Amino acid sequence: MAWASSISNFVVDASTKAPSLSATFVNDDPPVGKRLNLTTMSQTIRNMEYAVRGKVVNAADRINADLKSTSTSTSTTPPNFSHIVYTNIGNPHAVGQSPLTWPRQVLALTDLPPGVGTDHRLAKRLFPGDAIQRARKIKEALGGHGTGAYTNSQGPLEFRKDICRFIEGRDGLEEGACDEAMIFMTDGASTGIDLVLSTLIGNNKCGVMIPIPQYPIYSATIDRLDGQKVGYYLDEENGWDMNVAELERSLDEARSNGIVVNSFVLINPGNPTGQVLSKKTVQEVVRFCAKHKLVLLADEVYQENIYEENGTFYSCKRAAFETNLIQQDAIELVSFHSTSKGIFGECGRRGGYMELQGIDPDVKDQIVKLASSHLCSNIPGQIMMSLMVNGPRPGDESYESHEGEKKAIFESLKRRANIAYEGFNAIDGITCQRSQGAMYCFPSVEMPKGALEEAERDGVDPDTMYALSLLESTGICVVPAAGFSQRDGRHGFRTTFLPSEEEMVEVVDKVSRHHKEFCERYA
Amino acid sequence: MAWASSISNFVVDASTKAPSLSATFVNDDPPVGKRLNLTTMSQTIRNMEYAVRGKVVNAADRINADLKSTSTSTSTTPPNFSHIVYTNIGNPHAVGQSPLTWPRQVLALTDLPPGVGTDHRLAKRLFPGDAIQRARKIKEALGGHGTGAYTNSQGPLEFRKDICRFIEGRDGLEEGACDEAMIFMTDGASTGIDLVLSTLIGNNKCGVMIPIPQYPIYSATIDRLDGQKVGYYLDEENGWDMNVAELERSLDEARSNGIVVNSFVLINPGNPTGQVLSKKTVQEVVRFCAKHKLVLLADEVYQENIYEENGTFYSCKRAAFETNLIQQDAIELVSFHSTSKGIFGECGRRGGYMELQGIDPDVKDQIVKLASSHLCSNIPGQIMMSLMVNGPRPGDESYESHEGEKKAIFESLKRRANIAYEGFNAIDGITCQRSQGAMYCFPSVEMPKGALEEAERDGVDPDTMYALSLLESTGICVVPAAGFSQRDGRHGFRTTFLPSEEEMVEVVDKVSRHHKEFCERYA
Repeated sequence: MAWASSISNFVVDASTKAPSLSATFVNDDPPVGKRLNLTTMSQTIRNMEYAVRGKVVNAADRINADLKSTSTSTSTTPPNFSHIVYTNIGNPHAVGQSPLTWPRQVLALTDLPPGVGTDHRLAKRLFPGDAIQRARKIKEALGGHGTGAYTNSQGPLEFRKDICRFIEGRDGLEEGACDEAMIFMTDGASTGIDLVLSTLIGNNKCGVMIPIPQYPIYSATIDRLDGQKVGYYLDEENGWDMNVAELERSLDEARSNGIVVNSFVLINPGNPTGQVLSKKTVQEVVRFCAKHKLVLLADEVYQENIYEENGTFYSCKRAAFETNLIQQDAIELVSFHSTSKGIFGECGRRGGYMELQGIDPDVKDQIVKLASSHLCSNIPGQIMMSLMVNGPRPGDESYESHEGEKKAIFESLKRRANIAYEGFNAIDGITCQRSQGAMYCFPSVEMPKGALEEAERDGVDPDTMYALSLLESTGICVVPAAGFSQRDGRHGFRTTFLPSEEEMVEVVDKVSRHHKEFCERYA
Repeated sequence: MAWASSISNFVVDASTKAPSLSATFVNDDPPVGKRLNLTTMSQTIRNMEYAVRGKVVNAADRINADLKSTSTSTSTTPPNFSHIVYTNIGNPHAVGQSPLTWPRQVLALTDLPPGVGTDHRLAKRLFPGDAIQRARKIKEALGGHGTGAYTNSQGPLEFRKDICRFIEGRDGLEEGACDEAMIFMTDGASTGIDLVLSTLIGNNKCGVMIPIPQYPIYSATIDRLDGQKVGYYLDEENGWDMNVAELERSLDEARSNGIVVNSFVLINPGNPTGQVLSKKTVQEVVRFCAKHKLVLLADEVYQENIYEENGTFYSCKRAAFETNLIQQDAIELVSFHSTSKGIFGECGRRGGYMELQGIDPDVKDQIVKLASSHLCSNIPGQIMMSLMVNGPRPGDESYESHEGEKKAIFESLKRRANIAYEGFNAIDGITCQRSQGAMYCFPSVEMPKGALEEAERDGVDPDTMYALSLLESTGICVVPAAGFSQRDGRHGFRTTFLPSEEEMVEVVDKVSRHHKEFCERYA
């Protein structure tokens, strides 16, 4: 098994990359054009890449707008599809998943002013009793100030207690194993990741180990902060598993290049790769981080999305407990969670939390200060998170219906994961690992030689060329695999399996037909 | 009029400030203690100050927690007040302001799933028709995906159109003068400010002109990005007005120190100073920025809070139009607004927008990319912003009640501004400019010589000492003026006038009694 260089394998579009930092505007004669232009702006931001909403989705949005206006115009040849299927982003409600009823009832009740909401005589006929009761409890937790006031920068204490009890229950830990003072409620997981990476990256020698492939918020944020991306490869042939030898190799190489590696990102279940790591692997990772004193960032936002029979989510927190690393104060860990994924799929809410474990208390204070400068995360997002970690209990009025709705969504996701896995693998020239978890497939595509040559001639990334071709011929919007980084010479794309089961069957069929056409075009 | 040096007049607490950047951990031997500690973490974050939620509010939170638990404990002497009055932060709902009914009704309806919400037969009895209708329109604007899906990174097109029509109406501009493609919906104004400053500050030579005193999100963000704060003084004796001579002086001084000044922050109405700038002054500022090619950041979040008879808000956008700078493409302007202030006071919603005007299209694309990496702002915040800029029209079912509620809040704020102004000025040793707008007073306090000596001896900032003394003796939580920066030798604090009118009278009375005691203590 030969591994390519792990540092530089991130795609940057040559057309937008700054020629060199020295070109930055440094004297103060007013420039000829705009003061703020591509040359004078922050070059770390200019060079930052973010693939999930990049070139392909922009093209999709343009086609979508054209499709909507073709009813009134006949100037262009209409494409042979009626709408764009957005499989580029894990955005369940946008592709037909219904919100769960009970959390939305509670949320609506918390927003209604007194006299219209929980106390209104009609409320009882419109809302179940346990929704009204929970809404009252939430109003108390918010100090009686309602949803319109800033909260504590970390979120209200009662919500953080809910989160701690959830973590303890999930991981089989005793009460108190999780400290509410170490919970930060955030606007989605993104804001938490930003807070922690900002604290970790102090200069351009600081390195963060990230998987290849990875979710591009990591590469983008490290670029923006002018830190070093230190890639470690996941093992595609073994269902995207990890192995410690590769972690050691990557760390050694980075250190020999003068990089001060201070942290490690684990995404479990994987994004874009969909693997669910075993207890053994997660324990190896926490031991590796403890041994090398790397702060472990555990991105566990897909912890509910596990489709394997007998598959279970095994958290880094639990691993650190069960290897005694927490008891020995030998691990620095930050775990992230979100309302956007799982069964709730409440992306637009921007709810999330992070838990610090073993972090220096002085550093925690600094993170509080940093979070304070944006005051607090949005309150409806906080409420949704508290409802996600503390739902109706057996016997509650909404328990059966809530659990029933959740199960229906989960079972359907499971079937869709399978439709994608079996469908893509049936296509000649495409192979795909099984998505044990999360919401994505990351198939590998055998690219015809002619296509690679044309891409090189045109100076475009072959994955982007392929994804644009797929979009134009089928209306399916995927993300080029290069945006997540991958081994040299590999090609492919990431797709969600979030559209309805019927539509997923169509997606697979269309991808198949397009792949055949594409190969013929470049034969 | 002698002005002190404008660059270095920002308070940093010596106990947390890093000794020097060279102390940063640069080799890669695992450190003895934690990997992430005060020495190895980002030093720009360590050195960043954020006063609004600093030492004094932490002390207030501790006392508050003690007050709540004293019912069960008798171990400490209880203080001579029953609760903390939080006047440190513009958080209206936390100090008793009720949310407006109609926007909350619409919001609640948009969150309810189909069959429970707008279509339910009981909904018509619980909600007015124009709330149901607007909720339906909002669901359409969200592409039928509801409030649980990510939107376009700038926010849904329909909401951005609402914002444009609002700006045009406010500024007397023709339709089309505002382009929805240049609107970014943000999580409060804070996120927008962060996006723009991150783009502007490319290296540690980049300077941003900010008022002294200023709202500390500017100083904190510039510190975090390792940029240069270039302070210009507001003229306290003239009601915190601005003058161009001072702006030129500040810019000249910064440039002669090798700073590349590229931008200018205007806060109007002022925070913490409460002044409302005249048409003449705002026009001078836009001309100054055009002349020196400075990107103008117009913080206009208090534009609704204007209490002067015949006082009007005059926006930078309008000024740039009426001086022909927009028509000549001679100004680069970003304006910020928020749902948190004004009459809505919906802080917890984290709703806001920014409008780009005359910004290089390539830079705009970069800001879109940066915003995309956090996907989108929270949807309830977006909805609240759309309701704030486009409320019920005359003849609509909720028009009279909505306008009535708004007027009651506004008139009360106006009376409270006056209670604070007259009350503070009646105290011997305290002087205060009239708050023509916003939500704050920024009184100047004559500090007894003994207090200054003790503060110096103890190495503490005198304003913090004063604010802590006020807190401990009265339960009133204000922000030390030093946190906003001020002229050398000036002392004081910032307070909101958001508590109820009865409570504001008490606040003034308690500040008066405390000031007398404080002066006697240090006589």
